[in-house]
Amino acid sequence: MATAGIAAADVTLGGGAVAGLKSTGAGDAFLHYEIDIDIKAAGETDSGLSFGASMDIDEGATASRDPEIFVSGAFGTVTLGDVDIATDGLGLPDLGFDGIGMDDDVEALRNAGAADVTYAHSIAGISLTLSYGVGGTTGVDANEGDFGILLGYKFDAFSIEAGVARDDATGNRGMGVELGYSANGISATALWAQQDPAAGAETSGYGLNIGYTIDALTVSASYGDTDAAGDAEDYGIGFSYNLGGGLRVVGAVGSVDNADVWDLGLTMSF
Amino acid sequence: MATAGIAAADVTLGGGAVAGLKSTGAGDAFLHYEIDIDIKAAGETDSGLSFGASMDIDEGATASRDPEIFVSGAFGTVTLGDVDIATDGLGLPDLGFDGIGMDDDVEALRNAGAADVTYAHSIAGISLTLSYGVGGTTGVDANEGDFGILLGYKFDAFSIEAGVARDDATGNRGMGVELGYSANGISATALWAQQDPAAGAETSGYGLNIGYTIDALTVSASYGDTDAAGDAEDYGIGFSYNLGGGLRVVGAVGSVDNADVWDLGLTMSF
Amino acid sequence: MATAGIAAADVTLGGGAVAGLKSTGAGDAFLHYEIDIDIKAAGETDSGLSFGASMDIDEGATASRDPEIFVSGAFGTVTLGDVDIATDGLGLPDLGFDGIGMDDDVEALRNAGAADVTYAHSIAGISLTLSYGVGGTTGVDANEGDFGILLGYKFDAFSIEAGVARDDATGNRGMGVELGYSANGISATALWAQQDPAAGAETSGYGLNIGYTIDALTVSASYGDTDAAGDAEDYGIGFSYNLGGGLRVVGAVGSVDNADVWDLGLTMSF
Repeated sequence: MATAGIAAADVTLGGGAVAGLKSTGAGDAFLHYEIDIDIKAAGETDSGLSFGASMDIDEGATASRDPEIFVSGAFGTVTLGDVDIATDGLGLPDLGFDGIGMDDDVEALRNAGAADVTYAHSIAGISLTLSYGVGGTTGVDANEGDFGILLGYKFDAFSIEAGVARDDATGNRGMGVELGYSANGISATALWAQQDPAAGAETSGYGLNIGYTIDALTVSASYGDTDAAGDAEDYGIGFSYNLGGGLRVVGAVGSVDNADVWDLGLTMSF
Repeated sequence: MATAGIAAADVTLGGGAVAGLKSTGAGDAFLHYEIDIDIKAAGETDSGLSFGASMDIDEGATASRDPEIFVSGAFGTVTLGDVDIATDGLGLPDLGFDGIGMDDDVEALRNAGAADVTYAHSIAGISLTLSYGVGGTTGVDANEGDFGILLGYKFDAFSIEAGVARDDATGNRGMGVELGYSANGISATALWAQQDPAAGAETSGYGLNIGYTIDALTVSASYGDTDAAGDAEDYGIGFSYNLGGGLRVVGAVGSVDNADVWDLGLTMSF
Repeated sequence: MATAGIAAADVTLGGGAVAGLKSTGAGDAFLHYEIDIDIKAAGETDSGLSFGASMDIDEGATASRDPEIFVSGAFGTVTLGDVDIATDGLGLPDLGFDGIGMDDDVEALRNAGAADVTYAHSIAGISLTLSYGVGGTTGVDANEGDFGILLGYKFDAFSIEAGVARDDATGNRGMGVELGYSANGISATALWAQQDPAAGAETSGYGLNIGYTIDALTVSASYGDTDAAGDAEDYGIGFSYNLGGGLRVVGAVGSVDNADVWDLGLTMSF
């Protein structure tokens, strides 16, 4: 690794933490906590290009550091490393301090393959994200040739995003459409997603989330279901109370895959 | 993990390091070094609650990060994560830059069980620490139900702390009493501790440490013994010379479990 | 680990990153990236001694942290930890954003053994580096007794460094001489190195690197060869274009051990 030259860039720390009690419906409730410290290094070239790198330090000693390196300019942003595929940008808000898993079944359908480079750009409310797998060895890598695209458009309080991803090795495809609304303390999200394997039947699902914020309190409710054989519908309600300074009390209760689940805890932003 | 919201908290770095030569009485002396960088994130809510999280980055690539998350207010401080049990607050100062182990035999008696949450509070010289094991899975966790309590009182130069801890799975108990004095450059610590297994005989022990500081130099001596079968008495003398700015030269020589031990090195505070 | 005392030292973050495409001559080209965040803690005693510790956080979750602890004064600098042996200071610049390996064959000859402590000092253009293996256990450590020395002299645009290292367990020796010139945008480096095993024939090799910088662009060429049986000569050319602020575009093409190799990417300094 060669990194000579004048260093005018900055390295900063931020992150977050969660802690609280969770119940998954089986066995007893238990303590769950996570800490995520983000290391961000950023600089700017003489001509105004932004560039940088980021890593995470988690509470687990051997947890992945999610390394990413980016260059950003008028052309958009290119990011390399442990990046998400484009359709990972589609999602349904989860409920609870750690997430009771309301969004898991439907979100699992939208993705296919993996990526090590993304390109993102947005102009006048239109956004585009492309993801691709180049591979990290001289051989045929598992993610090599995997491709994803996500298109979005925002107008006033409304947003729409649609994307598709393809795993080149298996031919499996994931796709989805997310609709959003956010205004006057009301937020609403709808996600439709479908997994289309190279062989066999498609699986599709959808989810809805509606939230209402008044002063420091946000209450929200979610519903989701898929047509996978044996998959039960999921529903739940949750709240988040903002204590200021980055600390919130957050909890939720719901039914996920026929299990009665809940969590209650704190979220911290640093 | 959900950590939305305005982040007004700070992340800071500190820590320490030690380096020097050690001899354990067997084989030759060897180089020993440790680095411990502490990541501390902290914030304050609108109503004045303090909260935050901390992790350690050590010289070992896969060393535990000792993650902790806390909330603190007029009610005291609640800490979750990789916390110590309450009786771990009882201790005898060790001698040497890395510790020759003068305190190991007697300190091993005071603990029982483990914890993932503590509550601490102090008012007017009286301090209370409670530790408890909630467990981190839906099953029966090894530390589930483990409990510890430590009570302390400080008056002028004197302090006393007494505590007991119980391992719920085994029924083993550890307990101890620590007496302290610190004034006019003289510090003295006495520790009595006892391990009381659910079955079988109790083991108890005690230790004494006296130190005297004049200008930059501190000299200290320790003695300890337990009534465990075959355990030899431990004794030693040590010094610490403060070079200022966080650097000290520290060394000790002693007899620990019939072995002639010594160390000599540097301690750094960042 | 004991690190009491007033902490007036500072902990700072810096580092670098590289990202780009590499081809090793076999199979297809692939994406390669590295991030290296350096944690540096430093302080100063009342009498003006500098001291500190450093570690690396890399993109790999379990990568070595290269811990080092140092004390520095008018007497020179003593460094303990995961240090390089003295002859590691001899080297040939590599070509490319990550290095195509032009320097590997000849540089492999200069080293022998390992070290956990170094002493370095320089006066009036003369520099001395000693490395030694103390060992980190009570037994006979692999690096115990390993020794290295490097002497250097700089006069105007010229520099010369010569060193030898010996592995105490095997009796193997490595040695080398590096000549350098840097002025008026021209830089030149020549390295001769030899590996002298306790039993069997010596292997020696040499390498040359010449670079020319005009404004933001540096172009350079290298040649190297060793007399190891079956080792092919290595040669290549490379460039580095400085975009300012710590970002460079760097690439190279060459022949290394009869393979056609190239790389093209970015280097970042933070």
